[in-house]
Amino acid sequence: MSKLKKAYSAFERLSATTSWPDHVTPLPFGEGEEKRFWPAGFNAGTTSAAIKARRPDIMVVSSDQPSSAAAVFTRNLCSAAPVSLSKEHLRTSASSMRAVVCNSGNANAATGERGMRDAETMAAETAAALGVHPEEVLVASTGVIGVALPIERMSEAIGSFSAVVLEGSGADAALAIMTTDTFPKFIAVDIALSGGTARLSGIAKGSGMICPDMATMLGFLFTDAAIDPALLQEMLSAANERSFNAITVDGDTSTNDMAAILASGRSGQIVRGSDDAGIFFSALETVMTFLARLIVLDGEGATKLVEIRVEGAENDEDAKKAARTIAGSSLVKTAMNGEDANWGRIIAAVGRSGARVDTERLTVKFNDLAILEPGYRSDFSEEEAKKILAEPGYTITISMGRGTGSASVWTCDLSREYVEINADYRT
Amino acid sequence: MSKLKKAYSAFERLSATTSWPDHVTPLPFGEGEEKRFWPAGFNAGTTSAAIKARRPDIMVVSSDQPSSAAAVFTRNLCSAAPVSLSKEHLRTSASSMRAVVCNSGNANAATGERGMRDAETMAAETAAALGVHPEEVLVASTGVIGVALPIERMSEAIGSFSAVVLEGSGADAALAIMTTDTFPKFIAVDIALSGGTARLSGIAKGSGMICPDMATMLGFLFTDAAIDPALLQEMLSAANERSFNAITVDGDTSTNDMAAILASGRSGQIVRGSDDAGIFFSALETVMTFLARLIVLDGEGATKLVEIRVEGAENDEDAKKAARTIAGSSLVKTAMNGEDANWGRIIAAVGRSGARVDTERLTVKFNDLAILEPGYRSDFSEEEAKKILAEPGYTITISMGRGTGSASVWTCDLSREYVEINADYRT
Repeated sequence: MSKLKKAYSAFERLSATTSWPDHVTPLPFGEGEEKRFWPAGFNAGTTSAAIKARRPDIMVVSSDQPSSAAAVFTRNLCSAAPVSLSKEHLRTSASSMRAVVCNSGNANAATGERGMRDAETMAAETAAALGVHPEEVLVASTGVIGVALPIERMSEAIGSFSAVVLEGSGADAALAIMTTDTFPKFIAVDIALSGGTARLSGIAKGSGMICPDMATMLGFLFTDAAIDPALLQEMLSAANERSFNAITVDGDTSTNDMAAILASGRSGQIVRGSDDAGIFFSALETVMTFLARLIVLDGEGATKLVEIRVEGAENDEDAKKAARTIAGSSLVKTAMNGEDANWGRIIAAVGRSGARVDTERLTVKFNDLAILEPGYRSDFSEEEAKKILAEPGYTITISMGRGTGSASVWTCDLSREYVEINADYRT
Repeated sequence: MSKLKKAYSAFERLSATTSWPDHVTPLPFGEGEEKRFWPAGFNAGTTSAAIKARRPDIMVVSSDQPSSAAAVFTRNLCSAAPVSLSKEHLRTSASSMRAVVCNSGNANAATGERGMRDAETMAAETAAALGVHPEEVLVASTGVIGVALPIERMSEAIGSFSAVVLEGSGADAALAIMTTDTFPKFIAVDIALSGGTARLSGIAKGSGMICPDMATMLGFLFTDAAIDPALLQEMLSAANERSFNAITVDGDTSTNDMAAILASGRSGQIVRGSDDAGIFFSALETVMTFLARLIVLDGEGATKLVEIRVEGAENDEDAKKAARTIAGSSLVKTAMNGEDANWGRIIAAVGRSGARVDTERLTVKFNDLAILEPGYRSDFSEEEAKKILAEPGYTITISMGRGTGSASVWTCDLSREYVEINADYRT
């Protein structure tokens, strides 16, 4: 199956289990449709600097006028040069951006002073090609750590954008930022705001087994709605907690993780009142969660997409702790792979998560099937459990018997293929 | 290779890289030698209650007089019934114990009130067979979670000990507590105290991939030295931090983990002054670390035993954080499996560990080979690195460039076999 066909089929599979909020309509998805991807004012180009063999490895998305911007970054203390530079640019440009440049195949991480200069060169070359200021460019990289970028080849490749019309599709852009992803991840929705329609489009890359120790996760979002940078940042941070951060186990773990949004305002629709803000936020959360689920679906060697839903926790924080510990447990994830109704491993993970639990009231369900009932009673049909666990996706719900806190985390199974892929990724 | 042959060969391999402290001499190890295993006053018996197919699953070790006892237990909130009962017995007997009973194949965890009654029955039957009080018996279980013990068959089996002379070897005892372990783990040393010789013997079981999410770890230690219970507890807790707890990633994670020591005093040697206490502690730490390394060596599907040594940290706590995060990273562990010198994954783990680090002074070594030097300089011979990574055991040393804190954690690689073993452990 081609990468694009795989993307279509993943989109269809997730769409079927997505409840689209009111006022939010996904754009049709399929052959030819991806040309309509970008919100007004945005264009994309991709090219190759031969960092990766045989496919584009540099993506530029430009905005034809200054856009409000917001971003969230990895908290890893060994964060990469492009992370430092993008933070700096957001500050110096007062969150007004014109472009995003991203390369795949090399993370420009642990590359010292040389790495910082190379990231600056990426921004400068992009700015020169598009006729904007370097500090209006967000820079991202993903790939191998500790190797210097082939910056001369890259400068030349980026320079070529000055001579061409940028007309890459969403799929093209998503393809160019892939590392070990097996399909491009992109989605666009139209949003019915009080004054008219705005569009929100997003691309993302995962790679690595997202939990417990993801390699770089990148997400880029673009909208032609007009939104004040402070509100945009608030919305992005909140949506990020329930999407990209709900698929990692240790928070922002990689050296290069980044999610950013640019809002051009070119639709003429201004998100200001609380109604429009609510609508826009629900669209943003839905799009980001959709991208996050695509990432898990494409987890290295993954055969299952499982939602870990924790309810009845002391508070949301406790619920997240428990959900993340379960989602990150190698023993739970191998049991998923083996389609084994091993609820003992689930409660062992609950018990060591640090979340408060009333063990006498603890319950576990697979979809709607009660697996563990209060008082550690367990009397389910193995056959029915097997049927659920054989599906490519299902929900495990754990109730902690303490309060009203809840959280969802998405995870995938741990397979032999994961080990195969990662045992020799670098070489 | 038979399980016992495998144990001999593991013992030899680890002995070669163990520096035995002064005053501590390991007992000869090999065919027939294990009969001399027990310190004065201790005897062991094993039997089968058909919990596991085809091999003994119940072990009893008895002391012919009251022994000082100390123990450390899992902190898992969903801890098993035998954990609760053993804690209670230590309290009610004022840390004076006569026996340990342990079954394998069933953890008696998440079994509610029935589980507690069954654990009490195990203690009562053992006490009756040996003619001691139930509260002088430590109870342990390991195996599948959430299934009731076959307590009638077990009572009968334990009752049979009243009619037999307990003459099981250390190997017999270690074999009876195994679950997915591939060889029994046991070691005995003689300790030259100021007044004469005492013996310290230990057995342990691992199973599961010890990191990051171990199944039950059990360790039982026996000595014929006389030691006050408070001092014994202090020594056990301290040695545990550097041994059994230095091979787990999330602390005491399983529902059933337990390490206990009984000191009979039958050698007539009393550990009281600071010299003897120092000698005994070094013996205890060495024996427990040896058992812990045997557990990692036998990690499910493991092909490598790797020491993660963190130095130059802000303090020991930070060093442990960093070492544990590296040791628990699936990406690092798959790279070990692939014998890939992927130091980028190591520093990514350092960066997200929460430990403070001076990234400009951070260094990484494989054995004595410098892999990463200050300022993110990396210029090593891939060939030399490959040679080290191809060995069955090596040390990765990370220097954090901050202070004098240090810690060691032992880990193993993540292999396809691990997934195979765990995908269908329960069934």
